[in-house]
Amino acid sequence: VPKTTHPDFEEQLAFAHRLADAAGASIMPYFRCPIEVQNKDKGAGFDPVTAADRAAEIAIAALIATERPGHGIVGEEFGNRNEQAQNRWVIDPIDGTRAFIMGSPLWGTLIGLLDRHCAALGIMDQPYTRERFWSGKDATYFRGATGETRQVRTRSCGRIEDATFTTTHPDLFVPGVEVEAFQRLKSSARMTRYGGDCYAYCLLASGFIDVIIETGLKSYDVVALIPIVERAGGVITTWEGHAATSGGRIVATGDPRLHDAVLKMLAA
Amino acid sequence: VPKTTHPDFEEQLAFAHRLADAAGASIMPYFRCPIEVQNKDKGAGFDPVTAADRAAEIAIAALIATERPGHGIVGEEFGNRNEQAQNRWVIDPIDGTRAFIMGSPLWGTLIGLLDRHCAALGIMDQPYTRERFWSGKDATYFRGATGETRQVRTRSCGRIEDATFTTTHPDLFVPGVEVEAFQRLKSSARMTRYGGDCYAYCLLASGFIDVIIETGLKSYDVVALIPIVERAGGVITTWEGHAATSGGRIVATGDPRLHDAVLKMLAA
Repeated sequence: VPKTTHPDFEEQLAFAHRLADAAGASIMPYFRCPIEVQNKDKGAGFDPVTAADRAAEIAIAALIATERPGHGIVGEEFGNRNEQAQNRWVIDPIDGTRAFIMGSPLWGTLIGLLDRHCAALGIMDQPYTRERFWSGKDATYFRGATGETRQVRTRSCGRIEDATFTTTHPDLFVPGVEVEAFQRLKSSARMTRYGGDCYAYCLLASGFIDVIIETGLKSYDVVALIPIVERAGGVITTWEGHAATSGGRIVATGDPRLHDAVLKMLAA
Repeated sequence: VPKTTHPDFEEQLAFAHRLADAAGASIMPYFRCPIEVQNKDKGAGFDPVTAADRAAEIAIAALIATERPGHGIVGEEFGNRNEQAQNRWVIDPIDGTRAFIMGSPLWGTLIGLLDRHCAALGIMDQPYTRERFWSGKDATYFRGATGETRQVRTRSCGRIEDATFTTTHPDLFVPGVEVEAFQRLKSSARMTRYGGDCYAYCLLASGFIDVIIETGLKSYDVVALIPIVERAGGVITTWEGHAATSGGRIVATGDPRLHDAVLKMLAA
C-alpha cells in the first residue's frame, strides 16, 4: 500500500470533508424530485446533466477558490482551472448520473486531490444514504448513517473463479478487444453484476466485490477512488497496469494476486 | 386502479408493517458482515442463501403462526403452509440476495397478502436505508429515513422511445423468444439499466423508471409488488397480459399506455 507524503494531509482531508458536505447539501434537494434532464451530448448518446450536478460543482468551486486559491480544479462541468498547480482537486459531483435520475442511491460525489501526479486522498460521499468512504493516510474509512466511523479492508480472493465481478454497464465496452476481454472475465468469474459506478469501488474496498473493470473513464471518475481502493488493500490500474489517474480502461481488484491474474486475462 | 375489498384492510396492513419490522431486525445484523454463502443449487447455478434469509423467515413465520393462525404462508425457504387458506402471506425475506451479498442496498423484504387470488396488500422494506414502500387501500406510500410518509405515483410516459427501462440481469432471459423480446425493448428504450430487483419496482411506482421486464419470477418475487405498482398508477402483468400473481415473465409499466405498447413489442 503506497503511503502519501503530503505534508499537511490531515488539513487537506478535513477540507475535503467540507467539500463533500457542501456538495451533498447542494445535491439533495434535487434527488428524487422531478428534474429536467438536459441532453449534453447532441448526438446519439444520452448524457444527462442535472441541475444538481451544476449546483454541487458551483458550491465546491467557490470553496476551493476562497480557501485554496493556489490549488487547481479538474471537474466535468466546469473545465479545468489552474491546471499547473501542484495540488489539484479532481471532482465529479454526481458519479452515476443515470442512477441518480432513476432514483437509485448507487451514485456518489467524488472528491480527489492530486499532488503532482499522485492521488493523495479521496472521498466518495453518498448523501442520501448518509454513507461516506475516504482514504486516511494509511487506511480507508467508512461512516454510515449511524455516524460511527470504521476502517474497511478488501477481502482475500486470489482466483477469478471465486470472484464477484462488476462493471457499470456491459454495453460500454467497445466491440472487439474490449468486448472479448469483458466476455472472458465474465465467463470465468463466479458472479457478474452490473451497475454501481463509484459505489462499486467502495464495496470492493469494503471486501464485498473482488474485481471491477471499466472503460472510457475520465480522470474525475477515478482519482478519488484510487487511494480509497489502495489504502483498503486493493490495486487499481489501467488494463495495461499503468497508473489509473488519467482514467481510460480501469481494473480494480481487492486482492493483489487477483490483479495479476485479471491483467493477464485482459491482455490474452 | 383496482380497489381492494378486504374487510379488515387496515388491521392486516398494520400487521404487515410489524412483519417488516421483524424481518428487518433479523436481517440487519448480517448485512455487510462476512457471511457464509451456501450454494443451494448443487448444479452449475449460483443461488446464495444466507443466514439472514433464514433468520427473517423464521421471525415472520413465528408471528404469522401466533397471530394469524388461520392464514397461509408462501415463502421461498420454508415451503408453503396452510395453502388452502383464503388469506396467504407471500414472503421473500431478501429479494435481491446477490445485491445483498455484494453489500449493495438494492434488495428488500417483500411481504404480500393474497386474498384468494388477489394481491390485497404489499410492503417492500429496505432496512439498511430505512426505506419502506407499501400499498394503502387506494394509493402507494413511501417512508424514508426522515420518518416522513408521502404518497408516490408513477409518471406519464406513453412512448417506449422516451422510457427508462430496467431489468435485474440481461442474462436471465432464455435464448430465443425471450432474448429477442428483450433486445427489441432495449434497442427502442431511451435508457437501459440493470440491477434492482424489488427496489426497481418501487422506483417505477415512484415515477423514476418507466418499464421493467423480467423472466422466471416466483410468486414471492412479485405478489407484494403488484398492489405497490397498481395503486401508484402503474400496470403489472405477465408478458401475455395475465395476472402477475403466479410470477413467470413479468412486465410492469408506470403509464398504462406504455403497457399496451410493450405487450405488443414483447409479442412481436
